[in-house]
Amino acid sequence: MRPSGRNPDQLRDIKFTCGFTKHAEGSVLVEFGDTRVLCTASVDRSVPRFLKGKGEGWITAEYGMLPRSTHTRMGREASHGKQGGRTLEIQRLIGRSLRAAIDLKALGEHTITIDCDVLQADGGTRTASITGGFVALSLAVQKMLKRKQIKTNPLHGQVASVSVGIFNGVPVLDLDYAEDSNAETDMNVVMNDAAAFIEVQGTAEGHAFRKEELDAMLELAGSGIKELLEKQRIAIEEHK
Amino acid sequence: MRPSGRNPDQLRDIKFTCGFTKHAEGSVLVEFGDTRVLCTASVDRSVPRFLKGKGEGWITAEYGMLPRSTHTRMGREASHGKQGGRTLEIQRLIGRSLRAAIDLKALGEHTITIDCDVLQADGGTRTASITGGFVALSLAVQKMLKRKQIKTNPLHGQVASVSVGIFNGVPVLDLDYAEDSNAETDMNVVMNDAAAFIEVQGTAEGHAFRKEELDAMLELAGSGIKELLEKQRIAIEEHK
Amino acid sequence: MRPSGRNPDQLRDIKFTCGFTKHAEGSVLVEFGDTRVLCTASVDRSVPRFLKGKGEGWITAEYGMLPRSTHTRMGREASHGKQGGRTLEIQRLIGRSLRAAIDLKALGEHTITIDCDVLQADGGTRTASITGGFVALSLAVQKMLKRKQIKTNPLHGQVASVSVGIFNGVPVLDLDYAEDSNAETDMNVVMNDAAAFIEVQGTAEGHAFRKEELDAMLELAGSGIKELLEKQRIAIEEHK
Amino acid sequence: MRPSGRNPDQLRDIKFTCGFTKHAEGSVLVEFGDTRVLCTASVDRSVPRFLKGKGEGWITAEYGMLPRSTHTRMGREASHGKQGGRTLEIQRLIGRSLRAAIDLKALGEHTITIDCDVLQADGGTRTASITGGFVALSLAVQKMLKRKQIKTNPLHGQVASVSVGIFNGVPVLDLDYAEDSNAETDMNVVMNDAAAFIEVQGTAEGHAFRKEELDAMLELAGSGIKELLEKQRIAIEEHK
Amino acid sequence: MRPSGRNPDQLRDIKFTCGFTKHAEGSVLVEFGDTRVLCTASVDRSVPRFLKGKGEGWITAEYGMLPRSTHTRMGREASHGKQGGRTLEIQRLIGRSLRAAIDLKALGEHTITIDCDVLQADGGTRTASITGGFVALSLAVQKMLKRKQIKTNPLHGQVASVSVGIFNGVPVLDLDYAEDSNAETDMNVVMNDAAAFIEVQGTAEGHAFRKEELDAMLELAGSGIKELLEKQRIAIEEHK
Amino acid sequence: MRPSGRNPDQLRDIKFTCGFTKHAEGSVLVEFGDTRVLCTASVDRSVPRFLKGKGEGWITAEYGMLPRSTHTRMGREASHGKQGGRTLEIQRLIGRSLRAAIDLKALGEHTITIDCDVLQADGGTRTASITGGFVALSLAVQKMLKRKQIKTNPLHGQVASVSVGIFNGVPVLDLDYAEDSNAETDMNVVMNDAAAFIEVQGTAEGHAFRKEELDAMLELAGSGIKELLEKQRIAIEEHK
Repeated sequence: MRPSGRNPDQLRDIKFTCGFTKHAEGSVLVEFGDTRVLCTASVDRSVPRFLKGKGEGWITAEYGMLPRSTHTRMGREASHGKQGGRTLEIQRLIGRSLRAAIDLKALGEHTITIDCDVLQADGGTRTASITGGFVALSLAVQKMLKRKQIKTNPLHGQVASVSVGIFNGVPVLDLDYAEDSNAETDMNVVMNDAAAFIEVQGTAEGHAFRKEELDAMLELAGSGIKELLEKQRIAIEEHK
Repeated sequence: MRPSGRNPDQLRDIKFTCGFTKHAEGSVLVEFGDTRVLCTASVDRSVPRFLKGKGEGWITAEYGMLPRSTHTRMGREASHGKQGGRTLEIQRLIGRSLRAAIDLKALGEHTITIDCDVLQADGGTRTASITGGFVALSLAVQKMLKRKQIKTNPLHGQVASVSVGIFNGVPVLDLDYAEDSNAETDMNVVMNDAAAFIEVQGTAEGHAFRKEELDAMLELAGSGIKELLEKQRIAIEEHK
Repeated sequence: MRPSGRNPDQLRDIKFTCGFTKHAEGSVLVEFGDTRVLCTASVDRSVPRFLKGKGEGWITAEYGMLPRSTHTRMGREASHGKQGGRTLEIQRLIGRSLRAAIDLKALGEHTITIDCDVLQADGGTRTASITGGFVALSLAVQKMLKRKQIKTNPLHGQVASVSVGIFNGVPVLDLDYAEDSNAETDMNVVMNDAAAFIEVQGTAEGHAFRKEELDAMLELAGSGIKELLEKQRIAIEEHK
Repeated sequence: MRPSGRNPDQLRDIKFTCGFTKHAEGSVLVEFGDTRVLCTASVDRSVPRFLKGKGEGWITAEYGMLPRSTHTRMGREASHGKQGGRTLEIQRLIGRSLRAAIDLKALGEHTITIDCDVLQADGGTRTASITGGFVALSLAVQKMLKRKQIKTNPLHGQVASVSVGIFNGVPVLDLDYAEDSNAETDMNVVMNDAAAFIEVQGTAEGHAFRKEELDAMLELAGSGIKELLEKQRIAIEEHK
Repeated sequence: MRPSGRNPDQLRDIKFTCGFTKHAEGSVLVEFGDTRVLCTASVDRSVPRFLKGKGEGWITAEYGMLPRSTHTRMGREASHGKQGGRTLEIQRLIGRSLRAAIDLKALGEHTITIDCDVLQADGGTRTASITGGFVALSLAVQKMLKRKQIKTNPLHGQVASVSVGIFNGVPVLDLDYAEDSNAETDMNVVMNDAAAFIEVQGTAEGHAFRKEELDAMLELAGSGIKELLEKQRIAIEEHK
Repeated sequence: MRPSGRNPDQLRDIKFTCGFTKHAEGSVLVEFGDTRVLCTASVDRSVPRFLKGKGEGWITAEYGMLPRSTHTRMGREASHGKQGGRTLEIQRLIGRSLRAAIDLKALGEHTITIDCDVLQADGGTRTASITGGFVALSLAVQKMLKRKQIKTNPLHGQVASVSVGIFNGVPVLDLDYAEDSNAETDMNVVMNDAAAFIEVQGTAEGHAFRKEELDAMLELAGSGIKELLEKQRIAIEEHK
């Protein structure tokens, strides 16, 4: 049995609060159970140097955890003077995943920065960040269309992400902290609305995993992501 | 007239949501109108090196703004590799102000770190941080008393803070961003529940201010802080 | 009684040695008793990015203490790899204070950098820095006028600063280190030659202070600053 | 056809030069075609703080590229003052992968640091680093056994890694730079000698990939890693 | 007797492997006995800001040691976040020495960066770096001439370097680590092919040295450098 | 002719003001003409980690230039976040030079830090720093003897330093800025009171120098240092 009493293929309660803050072009508080991440999308009329003059845009992401979003207080990265390896790895992952959903030519010379700040952590902050980040990105794109900053919608699909793992020998979906810290294998999967893979990152924590375990986990991920994509659509639609 | 339509001596809507996050010993979302700051208090059973073996505790504070808490996105301090001068100045001020409310001997060898993270900024983030920080500190102290980590309540009073300024020639209380960015003079005042001053920081932005203007501003601050202290008491009481 | 034997309203011996170093456009060694600060003003024909093309100038300040300016050796900030919060706070204060004395339009597109380096510390280094910084700034402005870099004098007044505090229950002027480290309340005041306030920064170190104590301290500050402004005038005049 | 003329399931020429440098407890120059990485294993009789007194050891890894290991010169991370996100991500991956092959209890209170320095890059530097890093680790363990620093061999298996991808629509093994920079999908796979997965990291660069493409890539990886494990065994054996 | 059995005026085995790596315009592995340094020369079509628009080029150098190039593992400078004083001192020396051999006007607006990375250290890494750096520079210049990036050879001579010292009271040439760590005096000499001095850096480690000792060391250096210049010529000639 | 009108073998006016600041155990303002360096010696009852428990002491040095000690303002290293290569090189040189004058065993477990801060630069700041640093060190040692922190004088001699160079083809002593910036060759020499060399650092700026030029410069240095040693003795004696 899972500590939360959930079925192996059951997501936590998923909630999107669009417009959680007022300044950003797109803003959403995403909740995967007790994991709460504030995702904002900020539009800037310039592009990084390597894209100057190419007529293309860029999507980049930054990730942070509030010091006491976790069980024990973590040091603040700003006061340590640098972002840790885990942070850099996660924000690279978020950026790559969201770029897979957008036509950068159609975006034109704009940079959209997705900030994912974890207010409360209970496992799965990176998958919540990607899933919420997509919503923030969509809201920002809608605002750009309304303001006529762009002519056509550059998004050519949806992207969502969920974690899967093997807990007490059983493949389970959407691990919370209690499971995550005891899982034998942990995998983060990013997929699009065509049910194809954007990213697959699996790590054996306890024991190496076999092909049939991998297949079982990927199937769970597929069904979970299908649900998440549906919930994203509803949230975006309702906010219009 | 004030942009918000408030009277010169009128605070914005003040709201404390205690227990906003679950991991911290004390946690509160404080709102001064559209300014929203998440304040957490984290208790650690150790003290900084300069206090080792003295039987005393310490209160320290850290302050941060989420990158898109503001009108235009600010760079993330963690990725810049250092905290700016404004940030360091504010967190020093919060720490000093809260230490004025506590008997460090009675706290024993514990450090309480107050994290003030601005989710949305609309002027007065430092005064909201001090006012909310005191609530988070009180909640943490209550938890320490319940857990018998300390025997007596080390808090010997309350501390709250508000800004005052001169806007269009008129002294006004609790400036929002629209006023703050156009004020001729800006002053942050920290007071305790005995109506005495902990900190007075006044800056002439446009023109130097005279003694009678200073007096008028301090009087406004005194009445505003009285209200804030009352609201703090109610919030702490209701959360028990 | 004060450790130095001074009356409560008595400044330390104040001394300005103009032209203490030869390269800077303005240079002065300012002494408030045993506190000695070398202030230089450096003129640069460019402005920070946020002012480019606006036809305005800028005044900025940097502050540092030589490692053995103090009783025990402090670490060198350059070798620590960053300036501490206190340093940043002080240099922001010096910059704001001096900008209050100058018409940035009349300065044209020049930046004047005021460097305040403490050769020997005995309390009050920030007030000495502001007071000496104004003299260095004036000398640099004179040189610019002589060199016809500017047509009219952009200084529209004088600025000086002094500390006041409550020591053994008595309000006193211009605290030295022996007083400063034992004061119950410490306040730095910056005023102009129209007897108006530029900055008021009061901190309760031991006990919170009441309005009448604040008033007494501000009155002391006013009379001390009047003396300092007179001494600045003489020093600048004699150096012509 | 592949730019190199290789078959889709063909590795590049693989070469291990054990003892390439003399100071390290384990040292090997690993070559995957034109990709050359110097891997050294350094034994230290201490452990990181979080393991102190637990009787366990630790394996950690650091990764770097010489500035001109690449087509155009990259900045030196030491002079930039920090390691980039890609570097941190790779060294975390190498460390995790090698820890999966060792019993940290049996290692006792020793830290083995694996340094992987890329002398020449032509694609696949991270998979070469893991594959060579395992050889360096094995050589260091042999030396520890000879010197009686440990009693039993803590290695409970082998670990190797290879990249796979989809190039011009065809799944291919061990991508070189010409392929890597044009691949639609890129995947790094780490496996042990029981043919189980340690890490699977797949990224869609051009288009999202489907389950059957994933399966084809993993099968290629499995056969390639089998070959690499055999070559590791021979290299280690010959160096004894 | 010297630990290595060499005569006092005998160099170690000197070896240049030109073209050791393939991407750099010039690349050589230089060996002074067991000291092995990879020197590469990278050509860039731009110049540092202070030379912009002057029609001149620049030569700069960077130096690094692989963490386990030494007896015990040194920390990696990239992960420490800064280059140490010794590193900076050495790379400044290499840059100055090589600039002495080239006509920067004739180089035109190109920067050539010489990277010297120590794969294995056994004393004399800075002298090997200069000596090998000159070979890498020459190879790069040849390539520029072939590619018609420059019209005439900007090199107006050769530069090489060797260490000398006083070991057990005897002046000796080209110290290895065993001698270097016990030498009473240590001197690095850089000379050109006209037998004139570019740099002389002598340091008394044990006892101060007298003029006649200095003279004896400089004579040894002169004869050693003559040999090195000859070996450079052969290596460069053979690589054509 | 020299720009200053001095003879080739003539030092600038040399002046030592002992006790220039009051907190340091040893303090001197050293002037070589217009070059003015404040040298302080600070005694600390601890030693660096590598000397712990060995019963030996240590001498270390730090060097800095005030931002406007030079013709045009230099950036402040503390605000840049690191010390430049030149600074690190100079402070390593000062430390090595002064350690050559002291018996570290006799110093016992104390660290003496020599801070050399350039108030005004006109060429030769490193040689002035070494020469003044020795005076500050001597004054601190005298104070330690008086306070009975050490029993015997650990200084076994004197150390002083001067620059020599070739200016307009003529070897000259003690170069000022006007000469230094135009010299063809520049050499810094450190010697002890037995007329032996501690450091010799010669750099060809314009053209490589020949052995007879080196000899002429060293002879000039020897006579200049003899004078400096005499002036040091007088300054130290008078301050007793």
